[in-house]
Amino acid sequence: MMNPVITLTTDFGTRDSYVGVMKGVILGICPTAQVVDISHEIPPQNIAAAAFVLRTAVPYFPPGTVHLVVVDPGVGSERQPVAFATPEAVFVGPDNGIFGALWQQARERWSAAAVQAVRLEEPRFRRPDVSATFHGRDIFAPAAAHLAAGVPLQDLGPPLDELLHLPTQQPTWETDTSLVGAVVYIDHFGNCITNITAAHLEQLGAPEHLTATVRTHHLPLAHTYASVSPGEALALVGSSGHLEIAVRDGSASHTLAITPGTAVKVEKK
Amino acid sequence: MMNPVITLTTDFGTRDSYVGVMKGVILGICPTAQVVDISHEIPPQNIAAAAFVLRTAVPYFPPGTVHLVVVDPGVGSERQPVAFATPEAVFVGPDNGIFGALWQQARERWSAAAVQAVRLEEPRFRRPDVSATFHGRDIFAPAAAHLAAGVPLQDLGPPLDELLHLPTQQPTWETDTSLVGAVVYIDHFGNCITNITAAHLEQLGAPEHLTATVRTHHLPLAHTYASVSPGEALALVGSSGHLEIAVRDGSASHTLAITPGTAVKVEKK
Amino acid sequence: MMNPVITLTTDFGTRDSYVGVMKGVILGICPTAQVVDISHEIPPQNIAAAAFVLRTAVPYFPPGTVHLVVVDPGVGSERQPVAFATPEAVFVGPDNGIFGALWQQARERWSAAAVQAVRLEEPRFRRPDVSATFHGRDIFAPAAAHLAAGVPLQDLGPPLDELLHLPTQQPTWETDTSLVGAVVYIDHFGNCITNITAAHLEQLGAPEHLTATVRTHHLPLAHTYASVSPGEALALVGSSGHLEIAVRDGSASHTLAITPGTAVKVEKK
Repeated sequence: MMNPVITLTTDFGTRDSYVGVMKGVILGICPTAQVVDISHEIPPQNIAAAAFVLRTAVPYFPPGTVHLVVVDPGVGSERQPVAFATPEAVFVGPDNGIFGALWQQARERWSAAAVQAVRLEEPRFRRPDVSATFHGRDIFAPAAAHLAAGVPLQDLGPPLDELLHLPTQQPTWETDTSLVGAVVYIDHFGNCITNITAAHLEQLGAPEHLTATVRTHHLPLAHTYASVSPGEALALVGSSGHLEIAVRDGSASHTLAITPGTAVKVEKK
Repeated sequence: MMNPVITLTTDFGTRDSYVGVMKGVILGICPTAQVVDISHEIPPQNIAAAAFVLRTAVPYFPPGTVHLVVVDPGVGSERQPVAFATPEAVFVGPDNGIFGALWQQARERWSAAAVQAVRLEEPRFRRPDVSATFHGRDIFAPAAAHLAAGVPLQDLGPPLDELLHLPTQQPTWETDTSLVGAVVYIDHFGNCITNITAAHLEQLGAPEHLTATVRTHHLPLAHTYASVSPGEALALVGSSGHLEIAVRDGSASHTLAITPGTAVKVEKK
Repeated sequence: MMNPVITLTTDFGTRDSYVGVMKGVILGICPTAQVVDISHEIPPQNIAAAAFVLRTAVPYFPPGTVHLVVVDPGVGSERQPVAFATPEAVFVGPDNGIFGALWQQARERWSAAAVQAVRLEEPRFRRPDVSATFHGRDIFAPAAAHLAAGVPLQDLGPPLDELLHLPTQQPTWETDTSLVGAVVYIDHFGNCITNITAAHLEQLGAPEHLTATVRTHHLPLAHTYASVSPGEALALVGSSGHLEIAVRDGSASHTLAITPGTAVKVEKK
């Protein structure tokens, strides 16, 4: 590839040199890489948030993109450094649950032979002195850069059969016409994204016959923010394919006092 | 072009995957693009701030740069998605007033034939499924990438004769020797940038004969921060060509309690 | 070089267009540059923090990288704009002490002939109109881009024999077995990095025989965060080679009320 793409998702923030250092390591190995920041503001050590942010980004990158994720509460412990490849993308990071859902979905979608994982063990593809505290620099960035530069996945270490999969909270059906989910992520605008998907809503019926309840607020299900007046709240399927609680030109999180975990019920009117 | 430049100006913040997703879409279409962030911290839905930040950046980019702006309170409503090209640069975003001043200046500077606008309508240059909430990903990023890759502007949609132009607050002459303007933007350092330009000041006279008044403070007009002692306030023409109120090695906004809209008077001593 | 690397370290923040403007200037001169942000969140005008952040990044970039630093409380005053080159890297910025330690180390490591500095004076390698307030845009970004594009250092201005070197606080030996240092930098995670290095610790003895005291807390010296339970504090040599005070999965700065300058004593148990 002429201009391989490597994305970065971390909880490092952008104040220190940590992110820049990883890019320096990458460009020393793969000088033509296009390095793209997805986010460095994952809440510290929040594996679920990292997994959510990554899943919303992956489908929009070109085939062969290498996604490097370093949210790593277990650095220095026995969690494994891993990489895995699908026919669409490559993933590099700690095996702490970040990749569980992506791995499982890939295994269901493609043949097991098309979705391979390895433990990052080969010293040639690490920095010479691996520190105890910064595997992003010493293990993961070199692996991502070598993979982007064309090194075959299996050269980086022995194969793995499974990656760690953390259970994620799923919505529950109260009745056939009433589904209770929860807010799983709140974005920069204060939009509150739930674990209820467009597929769930299709089982419930047409949006105009549904209502969403969050705390004591009953909200219409709409197609766009412009369906309500500025300052009013609504529920809609957002760009990630999940039901979101939003306030037009405002912050639903602030206005409705929603935090991660707040319950959201959708039911027939 | 070998390495076309695409800039991004949004109110998306950098915490979520929104900006990374737009870059993924761009690199899938134009793999050699140099994508440059101008700002993702435009105050949410603040069209005036986006227009100001963009205007301070545009003159410093190489010819042919594509400037992509997504500050879009009307996403999902009837505002038009547009692109326009001048002999120096290309602009892509919602027609909500962001581009009004740039468009008008370009029309005055060059012939109408040299400054063309289109409505972004052609499905080939959008993502297949356009969401109701994320036109940055589905309409604007693809358009910018195709334009950077060499697609002619007129292929993206039907021509437009006008872009929306929002009135901007101009300084007013109280007398021939006294001009009253306002703070329009406060930067990261707390420098308070006004709508009074170097051209206005030339009409008033030499800086050493002028004084700036903000709230109850009378400030000298100076050439550099170093004209006053650390911690002292001054007025000077900043790097954007506008009069700024600054505090040497400090924040004028905090020290003098200045907010956007605060009046600034310049008059002869 | 095909893809020269230019890094940026500033106190500009990322809200305004200042950083984007410097990148526009760079790409106009050196279109194939890989521009990497190290940090734009250096505390305003904090030269010591900029020097620390830069030093932690430099060793990880490929040979020939141009490091552009703009933390410049003296912009508009008489401090000199400089560039210097070592066999490994090139540095561009104001001569206000940012580069002192790097310059001195380079002079000690290589011959004086291999480490050259110049005053950035040559008008061909500046923007035509140099403003009084934004030398990052008008002097430093053009210099960095021309150097990355292959212009020889000596073409940019007359040679300099010395760069400004600010004294930095060093740890002091209370006795042969007791060393007192200070916290010099606190990172995004709240890890508190001291001026005590791995070399200092080697003089004291094996880590298991040492204890670190910060305020009233006595902490073990450990190899990894995983040596203690989540929420517990420890001292360890971090990825920068300096002793850090950390809390596993937490913030040492918040938990132990540590600020820059807080004393840290290491002694034999």
